[in-house]
Amino acid sequence: MKAAVLTIGDELMIGQVVDSNSTWIASWLDKNGWKVTRKIGVRDDVAHIVEGITLCHEVADLVITTGGLGPTKDDLTKEALCEYFECGKVWHEETWQRVVKIMERFNRAPSELHKQQCYMPELAQVIPNDQGSAPGLFFHQDDKYLISVPGVPHEMRHLLSEKINHLIPAGDAVEHRFIRTCGEGETFIADMITDIEATLPSNIKLAYLPSFSQVTLRLTGYGPDQKAIMDTLSEQINSRLGNLVYGLGNITFSQAIGELLRKNNHTIGVAESCTAGYISHLITTASGSSDYFIGAVIPYAYRAKTSELEISEQTLLKYGAVSQEVVTQMAENVRQKLDVTWSLASSGIAGPTGGTQEKPVGTIWIACSGPDGTKSKLLRLTRDRISNIEYTAIAALVLLRKCMLGIEE
Amino acid sequence: MKAAVLTIGDELMIGQVVDSNSTWIASWLDKNGWKVTRKIGVRDDVAHIVEGITLCHEVADLVITTGGLGPTKDDLTKEALCEYFECGKVWHEETWQRVVKIMERFNRAPSELHKQQCYMPELAQVIPNDQGSAPGLFFHQDDKYLISVPGVPHEMRHLLSEKINHLIPAGDAVEHRFIRTCGEGETFIADMITDIEATLPSNIKLAYLPSFSQVTLRLTGYGPDQKAIMDTLSEQINSRLGNLVYGLGNITFSQAIGELLRKNNHTIGVAESCTAGYISHLITTASGSSDYFIGAVIPYAYRAKTSELEISEQTLLKYGAVSQEVVTQMAENVRQKLDVTWSLASSGIAGPTGGTQEKPVGTIWIACSGPDGTKSKLLRLTRDRISNIEYTAIAALVLLRKCMLGIEE
Repeated sequence: MKAAVLTIGDELMIGQVVDSNSTWIASWLDKNGWKVTRKIGVRDDVAHIVEGITLCHEVADLVITTGGLGPTKDDLTKEALCEYFECGKVWHEETWQRVVKIMERFNRAPSELHKQQCYMPELAQVIPNDQGSAPGLFFHQDDKYLISVPGVPHEMRHLLSEKINHLIPAGDAVEHRFIRTCGEGETFIADMITDIEATLPSNIKLAYLPSFSQVTLRLTGYGPDQKAIMDTLSEQINSRLGNLVYGLGNITFSQAIGELLRKNNHTIGVAESCTAGYISHLITTASGSSDYFIGAVIPYAYRAKTSELEISEQTLLKYGAVSQEVVTQMAENVRQKLDVTWSLASSGIAGPTGGTQEKPVGTIWIACSGPDGTKSKLLRLTRDRISNIEYTAIAALVLLRKCMLGIEE
Repeated sequence: MKAAVLTIGDELMIGQVVDSNSTWIASWLDKNGWKVTRKIGVRDDVAHIVEGITLCHEVADLVITTGGLGPTKDDLTKEALCEYFECGKVWHEETWQRVVKIMERFNRAPSELHKQQCYMPELAQVIPNDQGSAPGLFFHQDDKYLISVPGVPHEMRHLLSEKINHLIPAGDAVEHRFIRTCGEGETFIADMITDIEATLPSNIKLAYLPSFSQVTLRLTGYGPDQKAIMDTLSEQINSRLGNLVYGLGNITFSQAIGELLRKNNHTIGVAESCTAGYISHLITTASGSSDYFIGAVIPYAYRAKTSELEISEQTLLKYGAVSQEVVTQMAENVRQKLDVTWSLASSGIAGPTGGTQEKPVGTIWIACSGPDGTKSKLLRLTRDRISNIEYTAIAALVLLRKCMLGIEE
């Protein structure tokens, strides 16, 4: 059963907004056994939207469109749907009542724009949206399905997963296995499992998904009765890759780190300068992280390094804030201050300004302190400011994992 | 001059990875005057890739593909390009020499996979990639251009902006103006400027781009000599929306907050519990934020709230950590502790666990303390954990801006 996703909006086509909606929709379809074979993005233009729907339906029985259902003039999806399905628009009283209620909550009267939003394509089944004013639209014609949802992410997710899921037939059998690694590149990992990869049957695919300091391997099996062979292959790869593997399945790196800490009843604290909260943010993306994450200090300014973490002014002057000495003291002092088993620290120049000849932009020290002492590492990054920050935070967690497991660099 | 972007990879089609590449490419094309009229995403499948190229070239003179150029078996873009352009592959010695050099740096010998990566479509101009092993490919036939770059974001950006930019002709004239607002929804804002919107000429478009607590208005003018009228329209909208506007042009919300602080020689510190570093991260996404951001304390555990921020145990027991009393004390104490002009604080239940009947998931207090006292605000959010964290951090910055400018809630 094949599906396609159409994203609508000029903001996506001029590159102003990252399209995370089609990612979520594709993942939702995949979990439900629908194979997404085409994604298309078009502008806020009726002809382009109709063209997009046509190209999607050419290869797919189920098409999901997102965006262009709002109240403003650039929202043209309903016009396009009327043109594609050759139907008119009709007043939808229920939507109007919802809009009136929402506006009452804000002590406001609905406007002309709100009124226009209540006309719907007459061939559509209107799906009430509990989280916003624009409802979803559902079309079913000649065994083909089209679902149109707003572009506001949480409204889109709400409509698909709670209101529309039972309207479409279940898809084909598909099985995924994920083997998640950190600390090595994809070529290195591919080389380690060349022989296993050579034995894969034609209906099982292996993909490498690299990201900062991580490579996720994804096995996908098409067709029924794949469970046993998928488990075997996953286990073969897992044991070959050894302690490069931080987890299997849908676990995130932060959750894997959290499980290691929780298992040992260990706690963690952080002292971050250049990452300024991003290490702590990553750790706390895992629900339940209050079991082990005690807290953090972000001594961004020189004076905060002294007042909050007792880094001596002499050390700061002698070595500079971006140095092995300072990052080591940061890790050790925050470990003591917060009374935690493990601590992480960062200090560096994220850029684009602040570099010197001796310490160019991208010079970043990280450290991990624990029961057996402190390890530090120098990173020399060449990315943009935000990527440098994100990379550093992940590298710090990779270092923590190595220290916790006693893996040598 | 029309362009199209083709993204290649199963990981995008099963929704495992967010496609930020096509966003960057679209923005890069747009800046260079190329109008992106179609985006397509396909799987790691030669036939699908060829189909994707065909659908792109149907509407565009310039096609950029990203992904599928790596060394592993799921990387099939080069096969597809050979099929599309009806050509074979040839050994590319320069790429081989680069691979050998890269491997030497890691003290490793190149593998069979590395060797295979050095065969290139013979009709392609090979563009050396200084940041990775897979080069870019450039095709020019019958006034049509195709550029193929790797999917690793920083390699892709490097190749397009530094190696390939001069190979394609300049595009058409296009002008954008951005008016960035915070604190109100898109319908409210659209209602405020209905009359201005009604006067727009047909070659100027207005779009509303809503995100958490923010709406960016984008004016786009097509054709030459649009500068003057675009400036006039932008100024009309700007003055109508008044202090909802935090900035014009490419400024981010964090940069706008930073400029307000810098202008007044003010400083800021943060005490974050449930946002656990994300407010500090947002503030420091702005380069040069060390001019005003002194630091933060993240007292995630109860005991850290007491030891690091002197929140009394009695207050914590009486009101709970998620309360107006505690968030107010957090803001006031961190302001004093870090000796800053302004401070922000957050305390709440980001979810999905930790909620109670009285304080369900999404109950989050934020506070801002400054020269004229402390203001606090209760948020009742219904999103997922990470969205709740992100929303709260932005809401805290919106509150800070209101306090700094003396805007009443």
